[in-house]
Amino acid sequence: MDEFDFISKVKPNKTFQHNIVTGIGDDAAIYKATKNYNQVVCVDTMVEGIHFLKELSSPTDIGYKALAVNVSDIAAMGAIPRYYLVSIAIPPYWKEEDLLSIYNGMEELAKKYEMDLIGGDTVSIADKLVITVTVIGEVEEHVQALRSCAKPGDIVFVTGPLGDSAAGLDILLGKCDVICDPLHKEYLISRHKRPTPRVEVGRFISLLDRVALNDISDGLASELNELAESSHVGIVIQERLLPVSPALKSVEGQYDLSKWILFGGEDFELVGATSEEEWEKVKKLCHESDLFIEQIGTVTDEFQEVRLKRTTNEILKLKKSGFNHFRK
Amino acid sequence: MDEFDFISKVKPNKTFQHNIVTGIGDDAAIYKATKNYNQVVCVDTMVEGIHFLKELSSPTDIGYKALAVNVSDIAAMGAIPRYYLVSIAIPPYWKEEDLLSIYNGMEELAKKYEMDLIGGDTVSIADKLVITVTVIGEVEEHVQALRSCAKPGDIVFVTGPLGDSAAGLDILLGKCDVICDPLHKEYLISRHKRPTPRVEVGRFISLLDRVALNDISDGLASELNELAESSHVGIVIQERLLPVSPALKSVEGQYDLSKWILFGGEDFELVGATSEEEWEKVKKLCHESDLFIEQIGTVTDEFQEVRLKRTTNEILKLKKSGFNHFRK
Repeated sequence: MDEFDFISKVKPNKTFQHNIVTGIGDDAAIYKATKNYNQVVCVDTMVEGIHFLKELSSPTDIGYKALAVNVSDIAAMGAIPRYYLVSIAIPPYWKEEDLLSIYNGMEELAKKYEMDLIGGDTVSIADKLVITVTVIGEVEEHVQALRSCAKPGDIVFVTGPLGDSAAGLDILLGKCDVICDPLHKEYLISRHKRPTPRVEVGRFISLLDRVALNDISDGLASELNELAESSHVGIVIQERLLPVSPALKSVEGQYDLSKWILFGGEDFELVGATSEEEWEKVKKLCHESDLFIEQIGTVTDEFQEVRLKRTTNEILKLKKSGFNHFRK
Repeated sequence: MDEFDFISKVKPNKTFQHNIVTGIGDDAAIYKATKNYNQVVCVDTMVEGIHFLKELSSPTDIGYKALAVNVSDIAAMGAIPRYYLVSIAIPPYWKEEDLLSIYNGMEELAKKYEMDLIGGDTVSIADKLVITVTVIGEVEEHVQALRSCAKPGDIVFVTGPLGDSAAGLDILLGKCDVICDPLHKEYLISRHKRPTPRVEVGRFISLLDRVALNDISDGLASELNELAESSHVGIVIQERLLPVSPALKSVEGQYDLSKWILFGGEDFELVGATSEEEWEKVKKLCHESDLFIEQIGTVTDEFQEVRLKRTTNEILKLKKSGFNHFRK
């Protein structure tokens, strides 16, 4: 396989964004920033054997997710995703057909948001495919949906059911035999393989005067601790308010779901905090557009403490022990 | 090693760029684009065992080069480098101390250009370190130093001596016994390990009305073919005009240098083409600032053909056979 030939195959035939000056094919891409918007940029790497297994995910799904996790970071800033760049390290045993499918998977998601592939790199590696995606978005200059913006008295909310992705992964790995319904299984696996970045909800959230926002990549407990630490506040969430999908609900009682819901990670829902007045505003906007958003707790002034009030009224301290990649 | 702990160690204490709204530590970084400037973005990956060997390069050098090769792409657009993001996949046998040295190596170069580290990702990998750097720069809206801008009659130029990096690599690999002078050896190895991106020269070149520009990552022959193909022109270069360092010059006659000079790659000099009038302008500007720039040939109207006129007056067709990573 030839690098130049491969690049010509993944190079898009048409682009959505009119602000591209030079796309793929030169030393770097050039685009014009939108007036009165700030630039938002993030990068995430997925490694074969760590973040995905070739046997369990199709190349299209791998590509889709590699882009989705980055778009989710852009959504968590309330921003509009616009451009992406893909750097891929390819081991000899990956076929060109499968590599092109990875790009097709990304393109599938990119189309939805009218994002354009504007650059990247292709290199070889001895073993295990590594895919690094950089996404650039834009957000209105006044918007700062940061982790540090929560204040005591705020409503804590999430944008979708929790724990699905982790349950889906356990099903894929053969570690979960409680969920038997094939449709439930399919749903959970799809939540793991093809997470939906919450861009539309993120844009409604960006309309709020003040909001703290995070996407759930490392598990709810971990993300709440980050919000609490960055904002120097405490958070109390109510177990009975945590949204759970019908698939997980179906095994409630037979199985302790909290491992998935609180520490599972990779749901890529947004979790945030805003004042009561602003909360009413965003709830209305989301519900009018049939977008899920629900309260799960409140912000307190107990410095950096995150607590869970169980349905039994027991109160537990929630530690940052969701997925923390890179731990030994 | 803990991901959060590691990130806090690489997070810069201070930043150079005043346009950063949010740096490392949130879901994505936010910065304000400079008015009347376009955004320039590129990404490059370096893989242990392919692009560098742990035994032959210090972690500081690895970091320096990982950033340098990207800054070189920004320079090849005539742009100013501003921000960088680093995604690193870390195998268990790399020590935290060495990983921090990689970031120090990048910081060393970043300081020179007042660039800021604004984001990244850290993940684990079973074997071989992979480092992906994204660099964002800015360039005045009217500047388009693209590969496709060359025209027949143009002067073809380079910004420094060629072949040094490839010779340095051969010395490191024990494949070169003709160069004995220790100072020459040191110089060549340093050109391989710590290439200098030609940002200052690139900025002078950006002042030209029209210019085609490329950085030499894959070897002069390959880059010239890219210029010729993109611009639908031919190029003739003169062997006697190709700048050669005293280190390589010292073995001329004993050794065929053309392999290094024409196909070596990784010199990260700029190669470009501009009209005779503009050439006089940029030569003057560079020489006044003690920056190297010399003519090596001319652009012809022979469609996409690249030729080399040897000192013997023999004319050879130069094919795109510099380094082409990703070949099997």
